[in-house]
Amino acid sequence: MNKWDLNPPRGTRDLVKETAELYEYLFDNFREVARLNGFKPVIPPTIEHSKLFEAKSGEEIRRSMYVFVDKAGRTLALRPEVTASVVRIYLSKLKAEPKPLRLYYITQCFRYEEPQKARYREFWQAGLEVIGNPNVDADVSVIYATSMYLDRVGLEHYYVVNNVAILRTFLTKLNIVEDEQNLILHLIDKEMIQDALKAVESRAGETGVEIVSRIINLSMDGVEGAVDEYKYLLDSDYVKLLEEIDKLRVLVDQIKGLGYRVEFSPNLVRGLAYYSGLIYECKTPRIKQSIAGGGRYDGLTKVYGGEFEYSTGIALGMDRVALALTEGGSVGRFIENHVLVVSLENTPLGYSYVVLRKLNKEGISGWVYRTDNLSKALSLAIKHSFRAVAIIGGRECVENKVTIKNLETGEQATVSVDDAANYVRNMLIKPSIKF
Amino acid sequence: MNKWDLNPPRGTRDLVKETAELYEYLFDNFREVARLNGFKPVIPPTIEHSKLFEAKSGEEIRRSMYVFVDKAGRTLALRPEVTASVVRIYLSKLKAEPKPLRLYYITQCFRYEEPQKARYREFWQAGLEVIGNPNVDADVSVIYATSMYLDRVGLEHYYVVNNVAILRTFLTKLNIVEDEQNLILHLIDKEMIQDALKAVESRAGETGVEIVSRIINLSMDGVEGAVDEYKYLLDSDYVKLLEEIDKLRVLVDQIKGLGYRVEFSPNLVRGLAYYSGLIYECKTPRIKQSIAGGGRYDGLTKVYGGEFEYSTGIALGMDRVALALTEGGSVGRFIENHVLVVSLENTPLGYSYVVLRKLNKEGISGWVYRTDNLSKALSLAIKHSFRAVAIIGGRECVENKVTIKNLETGEQATVSVDDAANYVRNMLIKPSIKF
Repeated sequence: MNKWDLNPPRGTRDLVKETAELYEYLFDNFREVARLNGFKPVIPPTIEHSKLFEAKSGEEIRRSMYVFVDKAGRTLALRPEVTASVVRIYLSKLKAEPKPLRLYYITQCFRYEEPQKARYREFWQAGLEVIGNPNVDADVSVIYATSMYLDRVGLEHYYVVNNVAILRTFLTKLNIVEDEQNLILHLIDKEMIQDALKAVESRAGETGVEIVSRIINLSMDGVEGAVDEYKYLLDSDYVKLLEEIDKLRVLVDQIKGLGYRVEFSPNLVRGLAYYSGLIYECKTPRIKQSIAGGGRYDGLTKVYGGEFEYSTGIALGMDRVALALTEGGSVGRFIENHVLVVSLENTPLGYSYVVLRKLNKEGISGWVYRTDNLSKALSLAIKHSFRAVAIIGGRECVENKVTIKNLETGEQATVSVDDAANYVRNMLIKPSIKF
Repeated sequence: MNKWDLNPPRGTRDLVKETAELYEYLFDNFREVARLNGFKPVIPPTIEHSKLFEAKSGEEIRRSMYVFVDKAGRTLALRPEVTASVVRIYLSKLKAEPKPLRLYYITQCFRYEEPQKARYREFWQAGLEVIGNPNVDADVSVIYATSMYLDRVGLEHYYVVNNVAILRTFLTKLNIVEDEQNLILHLIDKEMIQDALKAVESRAGETGVEIVSRIINLSMDGVEGAVDEYKYLLDSDYVKLLEEIDKLRVLVDQIKGLGYRVEFSPNLVRGLAYYSGLIYECKTPRIKQSIAGGGRYDGLTKVYGGEFEYSTGIALGMDRVALALTEGGSVGRFIENHVLVVSLENTPLGYSYVVLRKLNKEGISGWVYRTDNLSKALSLAIKHSFRAVAIIGGRECVENKVTIKNLETGEQATVSVDDAANYVRNMLIKPSIKF
């Protein structure tokens, strides 16, 4: 028996074979869509000072962080989410860049939680952030890019939206301080509505409960009505709130205009304590879990000692996207083996590399296999799902040629080394492995 | 004053702007070259059980690992290197795959060391591994792919090679056990030759010192001669050693044949304790540090309770590659902003997204900026280095058109929405941002 536990630590995974290829395909496409939408990369460190996240990520994240002390006594954390790092980096290195700043990342995050379906202790997030644009355009732009991405990888999806500024403004007017607001939002997020209302009651009595119950059960048509009704309470914030509702309407209209379904959900609050206004989740009919979520985090810069700045962003749970795409079974392999170059042992190895280099230059994938046994080489090529073999024996070497055998049709031809790439290209039709 | 330390933890970095773009360019190209060479992705977890690395990574790595205990009492480590994870994953999930198995990865590693130039506590490694091929072909194949990559990103380079089996075989014959061999190799790696020889002396006396001194000072021409001279000591290992020397000669010849400079270095041993045969380092004249290193780690599978398996591989230090490329100054930006779509506020926002979508479909990058002030939009486009703007005002909307202004020439034309992408494409000549 093996004394070694060959499994990765609980809640983490080894991504291999078609799963690894799927993840690479998902990452490649995300990068391409982000760049096409004018987002620029940011690569934050995996380790941060733990207080960066303690400041504003919310209770749930705080409790599940991987925290450790390094050899110099620093209290560090493996990042549980990326936005706090992005804001820190913005303040320290990107404040002078032209705004709006558009940033993307793809990276691992870590949370010590009970592993369950599509929830891992190490998981992959891909995100888009826009810093320095107060307008709802920024939110539309982030959603446009998200949908372009999901369309490209073939995942049907829709949005659920809300504006958390509505509830936050009412709670503020009810004299409920920010920390208590965060607790109430956290309870609503966990669907513990009765507990949330109890917390409201202890602070703002029956009136508070009445107002909050009303707000988290509104229909889109009823929003302005409710705000009008509580105009006396809202006072100077009344106009600001109408503007926030207008943003919500613009967002809903634009998402519809882009061709996607969108639902208003008055009790959508999301888990992170830093959300300040419009928030959105992206869902797919294929799985229960959300595949992306985000929204406005205006002013998070101030938490880290910076000036107030407008910001919005979205993070895609890449493990959820991968899960949704494979719910109906494997999606197959994404990277093809084109040509195995068989270098028979009576020939110089260098000759085979001349041939391989010519194939590679035309985007044809493969590698050199050296053997004295052609039939062994053929069976190896078939096992590896190669589409063809390039056979190099004594005769080929002397004549500066190579014999190409199509493993799908059995067809075979001896061509000059210079013609080999063209011959293979025509034979394989579509031999590019660039995603 | 800001009470927040906005820097990342000591030894880690925030990669932003042109640096982040350079890293993405380096990673994209590595993935493409690896796939072209028939390597398949593997994505290991960032966290492993610490004993995985303690078993065979060598003293230096053991001392510099980030180790911590999780909430369930597991002793975990942030990976200091990737090969141990690859071997574990091979044993647990890939043993049944057709051989040779060809794997690639790009990932962060972590070592708690004093930060210095091109040495960070969190650093990036890209690697290639071949499992299940005893032949020197596998080593040539790994070097061929490494050089293809370095040529592609424009880094001149050469190799330093050795076969650590020569020294190991002699040490074994001198009755020096593996742990002591590892210590001696570690000292040689650190260029503490006198200490290494003292360790040899305490175990194998004057004869040992004489032999080891001889071996680590050989020229390529003298290798066979030395082995012949000690034939009496080598006994049954004599033939095996001649084979190992032959592999070294083939490797050297093939690297030359591929067009790269190669040096034999008899005292090259490399820091990791698992190397068993051919080893290689890749260097560039541009910086002092090696940019890649690797070699044979045949039998590392046995350390983790598996059957003996042949393996070889190389890891590129991506931070060193990036450093070498930027030694002469920034290499500029890799991701271009093509067209800013200016949505004037008297027009429906959705119209601008129709235009953007048509541009994006043709690989033209950009985003929508909504404003009531055209000159503000133009100055914003210039700040963001956009090459053109697509202006959408009332007239354009009514006529189903868009006005394209080339910011480099000042040239301007109003074209139909359907012609916009073609017009821009011709204007920008080369608007693809795919690397």
